[in-house]
Amino acid sequence: MGQKPITFLRQVTALCLCPELLDEPSIPQDAKGRARRLLAACAGQSAGAYSASPGIELVRQDVARFLQRRDGVPAKPQDIFLSTGASDAIVSILKLLVSGEGGSRTGVLIPIPQYPLYSAAIAELSAVQLNYYLDEEHCWALDVAELRRALAEGRQHCCPRVLCIINPGNPTGQVQSRQCIEDVIKFAFEEKLFLMADEVYQDNIYAEGSAFHSFKKVLFEMGPPYSEVVELASFHSVSKGFMGECGFRSGYVEVVNMDPDVQQQLAKLVSVRLCPPVPGQILLDTVVDPPQPGDPSYELFIAEKKAVLSALAHKARLTQEIFNQVPGIRCNPVQGAMYSFPRIELPPRALDAAKAQGQAPDMFFCMKLLEETGICVVPGSGFGQREGTFHFRMTILPPTEKLQVLLEKLSSFYTKFVKEYS
Amino acid sequence: MGQKPITFLRQVTALCLCPELLDEPSIPQDAKGRARRLLAACAGQSAGAYSASPGIELVRQDVARFLQRRDGVPAKPQDIFLSTGASDAIVSILKLLVSGEGGSRTGVLIPIPQYPLYSAAIAELSAVQLNYYLDEEHCWALDVAELRRALAEGRQHCCPRVLCIINPGNPTGQVQSRQCIEDVIKFAFEEKLFLMADEVYQDNIYAEGSAFHSFKKVLFEMGPPYSEVVELASFHSVSKGFMGECGFRSGYVEVVNMDPDVQQQLAKLVSVRLCPPVPGQILLDTVVDPPQPGDPSYELFIAEKKAVLSALAHKARLTQEIFNQVPGIRCNPVQGAMYSFPRIELPPRALDAAKAQGQAPDMFFCMKLLEETGICVVPGSGFGQREGTFHFRMTILPPTEKLQVLLEKLSSFYTKFVKEYS
Ligand SMILES: Cc1ncc(COP(=O)(O)O)c(C=O)c1O
Ligand SMILES: Cc1ncc(COP(=O)(O)O)c(C=O)c1O
Repeated sequence: MGQKPITFLRQVTALCLCPELLDEPSIPQDAKGRARRLLAACAGQSAGAYSASPGIELVRQDVARFLQRRDGVPAKPQDIFLSTGASDAIVSILKLLVSGEGGSRTGVLIPIPQYPLYSAAIAELSAVQLNYYLDEEHCWALDVAELRRALAEGRQHCCPRVLCIINPGNPTGQVQSRQCIEDVIKFAFEEKLFLMADEVYQDNIYAEGSAFHSFKKVLFEMGPPYSEVVELASFHSVSKGFMGECGFRSGYVEVVNMDPDVQQQLAKLVSVRLCPPVPGQILLDTVVDPPQPGDPSYELFIAEKKAVLSALAHKARLTQEIFNQVPGIRCNPVQGAMYSFPRIELPPRALDAAKAQGQAPDMFFCMKLLEETGICVVPGSGFGQREGTFHFRMTILPPTEKLQVLLEKLSSFYTKFVKEYS
Repeated sequence: MGQKPITFLRQVTALCLCPELLDEPSIPQDAKGRARRLLAACAGQSAGAYSASPGIELVRQDVARFLQRRDGVPAKPQDIFLSTGASDAIVSILKLLVSGEGGSRTGVLIPIPQYPLYSAAIAELSAVQLNYYLDEEHCWALDVAELRRALAEGRQHCCPRVLCIINPGNPTGQVQSRQCIEDVIKFAFEEKLFLMADEVYQDNIYAEGSAFHSFKKVLFEMGPPYSEVVELASFHSVSKGFMGECGFRSGYVEVVNMDPDVQQQLAKLVSVRLCPPVPGQILLDTVVDPPQPGDPSYELFIAEKKAVLSALAHKARLTQEIFNQVPGIRCNPVQGAMYSFPRIELPPRALDAAKAQGQAPDMFFCMKLLEETGICVVPGSGFGQREGTFHFRMTILPPTEKLQVLLEKLSSFYTKFVKEYS
């Protein structure tokens, strides 16, 4: 994702691929010890063998310990299924929940704007996409009244069974408050909805006053009946956070309160594709069980991690500041995740010009931007947005100096564009 | 898969994960050069970034060159889609071919015995599985008359559109003759079937007189109209062959004569899950573009490759010889792939005992074998077999001495079992 890799993660993984490097003096002892421990847990002591379908048992145990530390709530390796990126786990859970036969089709509530994996998977599975709109006027907050509206509407033509949440949000960058999460859990409880919590950006929190609250932690803090009844699947990934290791395609889902028969079907479902990539499983282990104070790799690890996260926080602020100086652009604070999703006013003549070309107005803007400046951003229509509003998504990942230039170029282009079409 | 990894493959991949090791003097120059070339082709020069959805362009080019060398027929990078193991590509192609809406359901012809990914994927997609039986009396050969029978039967209740071939076969270990492949292609042409050729065992050919003929090569040698019309998808993987790198989950499909609109849908379909794991893509590149004579890694590479393949050939013969000495066991020659699939006679009292336990007879045998000897083999019923026949599948992967002991133990257990239930 354009960020510098964290040395320890890569060292351990490379050692597991090439154990002859265990003699290499330049690699720290703790990385070597970790590689030996992981190799011993691989089938045939090799990263080249298929693992068990839900993942290497040791890695599942390490994930469980990580979750227990994070939430202060017990976590069991049996409830953790490693996956080929969070994408794979999200699609598997959707498949599992949707595939039930029967009269009416399964409805899945998703936020708008959303990460397009959801709409694509819902379409592939012939389920029904039920949109609930995030509240742009309140920093893209999730409003339970809006959830209720979307559910009621959905009930008229399908059987809504699943509620998807993305927190922190992609593309919208909001971080949900603890109160809001509680409200959503109560709602899911009352309406008997299965909660899918996409928490892949859990380490990417920048705004003062924002904090990451996992759905599982809040659920257990709420106690019975919620903690015993509400079914939850929470997703994580090595693609985001401080590590940004998208290419490894590694993640996991933890299921909570899942019906045991359904969970067994899940185990069967994932076994068809054999197992997640082993190098990614190894890398995931280093993420959930990082070097500790006193370990040879600790200082460098912490320094690298801090550098990545503080640069991201800085770039999140920078983005918001620059955009909000431009009349016609309004950018909510980038509280978390890796994107800004500013709203842009487009003059009527630009709408006409877009129509003439058969393009959505924000697509028209983005194409012009690309043609004239080489800057590539994604039109809001790719994520969904309220009718008549226009946005684009831009990542905060480029190096600070480069990002600053991009933001300024984009802003002047916008101003010029508006003038041209006014 | 229990075989020793090939040094060059692992070195290049590890270097790409940990470029700081490029200074390491113990790693040969050609591996370093290769790693630099591949890293330069990665997004952001990093194995940690998502690649393009169909795979790194350079790797697709290298696969195309490999296919061109193999077949003597042009191959285009645009027709190659890298995947998360062959499994992923097989499921994607099935999804693409089945998903067409319309009146009657899509029928997919698969061999029996089959690799269970096919039946599972067909069930998931709500397509119709149409069985054609391989001819055990003739070394598990594919007989076009049997294909014709299965197709005619299928036409009575669904719309057969796809014909799957596994060559060399899993679990059956046969290698198809060139003539047979020609006959199958003619049949697909006449009946307008899409051919899916699972050729993941193409490097695993052991029997004298057997050779691997790719469907694509035969198709093009047949010339028009076949070469211009018959739609084909061929699958390969790093999991088998001399490399056996299952854990990396890397493979590809090449599509031939695919309708351009359908191919565009395929591109869209694979983009939903972002991309195949990058470490696996890198490893695949080293497989399709191995060290050449004169390269520092060449001698070791060839020696390692030969050692793996000749050991497998030896174990294939050994398996067949030992099993065929046992009255009641009949094992076809293991011409290719990595398994034997011997047929076992089971006495009537064993069938009764199995029935009493609610188990398939060969499952009953395999469970008893496991309990008494610790040897784990898979009952034939997991792959499908002709009614009233019983088999099990055993891999030839364990080291020779260990395999010999396993074969002998299994044989004596079988003899004892038969005596006990007679
Ligand atoms: C909200 C969200 N969920 C899931 C994913 C998929 O992540 P992975 O790379 O782990 O499949 C992404 C990737 O951008 C994302 O933004
Ligand atoms: C015939 C056949 N096809 C496909 C596969 C899947 O291979 P991969 O590991 O590349 O997904 C296997 C694995 O055993 C196989 O035997």
